Amino acid sequence: MSAAEDGASLSRLSLNQITVDQWTLPEVVDGCVRAGITTIAPWRERVAEVGLPVAARLIADAGLRVSSLCRGGFFPAASASERRRADDENRRAVDEAAALGTDVLVLVCGPPVDRDLAHARAEIAAGIERLVPYAAEHGVRLGVEPLHPMMIAERSAIVTLGEALDLALRFDADEVGVVIDVYHVWWDPALEREIARAAGRTIGFHVSDWLVPTADLLQGRGMMGDGIIDVPRIRQLVDANGYEGPIEVEVINRDLWRLRGEELVALTRERFAVHV
Amino acid sequence: MSAAEDGASLSRLSLNQITVDQWTLPEVVDGCVRAGITTIAPWRERVAEVGLPVAARLIADAGLRVSSLCRGGFFPAASASERRRADDENRRAVDEAAALGTDVLVLVCGPPVDRDLAHARAEIAAGIERLVPYAAEHGVRLGVEPLHPMMIAERSAIVTLGEALDLALRFDADEVGVVIDVYHVWWDPALEREIARAAGRTIGFHVSDWLVPTADLLQGRGMMGDGIIDVPRIRQLVDANGYEGPIEVEVINRDLWRLRGEELVALTRERFAVHV
Repeated sequence: MSAAEDGASLSRLSLNQITVDQWTLPEVVDGCVRAGITTIAPWRERVAEVGLPVAARLIADAGLRVSSLCRGGFFPAASASERRRADDENRRAVDEAAALGTDVLVLVCGPPVDRDLAHARAEIAAGIERLVPYAAEHGVRLGVEPLHPMMIAERSAIVTLGEALDLALRFDADEVGVVIDVYHVWWDPALEREIARAAGRTIGFHVSDWLVPTADLLQGRGMMGDGIIDVPRIRQLVDANGYEGPIEVEVINRDLWRLRGEELVALTRERFAVHV
Repeated sequence: MSAAEDGASLSRLSLNQITVDQWTLPEVVDGCVRAGITTIAPWRERVAEVGLPVAARLIADAGLRVSSLCRGGFFPAASASERRRADDENRRAVDEAAALGTDVLVLVCGPPVDRDLAHARAEIAAGIERLVPYAAEHGVRLGVEPLHPMMIAERSAIVTLGEALDLALRFDADEVGVVIDVYHVWWDPALEREIARAAGRTIGFHVSDWLVPTADLLQGRGMMGDGIIDVPRIRQLVDANGYEGPIEVEVINRDLWRLRGEELVALTRERFAVHV
């Protein structure tokens, strides 16, 4: 089988906005249309730059689909008032997802606020529980994304697919699912088993690569093919669990942000065809 | 209960040599004697600097115990000749452990040589299997140390305590055990269960701390108390599984290596009493 036959179809490619962080949202929309990319995943702060109504209209007028909105979450709070602010923020994120026409809000669950990791995890579960009714009312599913354990102190106390899935399984399948990002899960010896267990609960799939060496814990991801993740194998496991949705390319890399946007989009398309 | 009553007894402190990497082995031996630290954990390259017989005599004459030798491992090999070289090196590490008077050789199992992580893990299991008879003959137990998943591409394809333990359990308890380092395992949602499961198999326990932010994936560890790991909780879990051996302080941090050695040893003692 050739690489092209084996690779994921380009029709499944969704461009996560942060991959082309040198572009504003209107530039991403234009760039995708010109490159024949049909699906995007915007970030909230880039939506806010142009305003939600403008962003929604731009995307709709361009005929693009939205695979997910990035992101809600950050549940652990140091005080009751912080917790209320986070809840408000998360409801706004649900509103924005609905307005942008996607039914998936990605949750980056947030770091612990102190040394009590078990408490942070309990707060995350409680926060999701508070958000679910509002999200369900608005037709938005919550996608719990486990992040790489190295990001635990800055981004997420949920660090394995197994625990993300255990969290999701407390709720109905049309309310909460998991988002599988190869960068965050590829190291996990339980990966094959957990991806199989995520059948019917996988509502997002993200790709990038692990560079060697990795110089930056947060912004050092690579373009597929530049690192050592066996992306096609993980894609096949996710395929086998029944996920047929968009595959987001989410590469967070300062060096790539120095390229011209068009160049980076062309590279993304090319790598997706061969290395996903 | 006061911190002093709750903390680990200083008699359990073992100084891992890399914590005071500004010192040669003779300097570490002297420094420990002066500070009343009874146990050390040398690294092979620092032993080689003075030669094995000199190192063994220095340590014995000073009346120090050796908690472990760091390190063997690095099993995945790109070719048969590389594999033979690694096997030879690992047998030499066993010889050195025995000569230095410790019965624990720490294994850092090595990174994958390509994208095939499953193959790397199989090679690690096979490598341990080849080494076990030689180590057993020399009265040396092999301590499989799972490393943090962010070190997978540089140091170890074994990244969870669960998989380290599964590896160890293929062998007799007096042949292969696990080494639990808080820095490598603290993020794991299965930690409590896996530490309990490691009862009778824990042959080393290492402490340091996770700094926020962590600027360096390999050399950015903190001194206990400077980060967000709940070290006493993990120590209590390890106590509860029955481990009564030395607790190695293994802080790998460039900034601390700029201190005078005496100062760093004093800090280590002080932090151990309060934060372990």
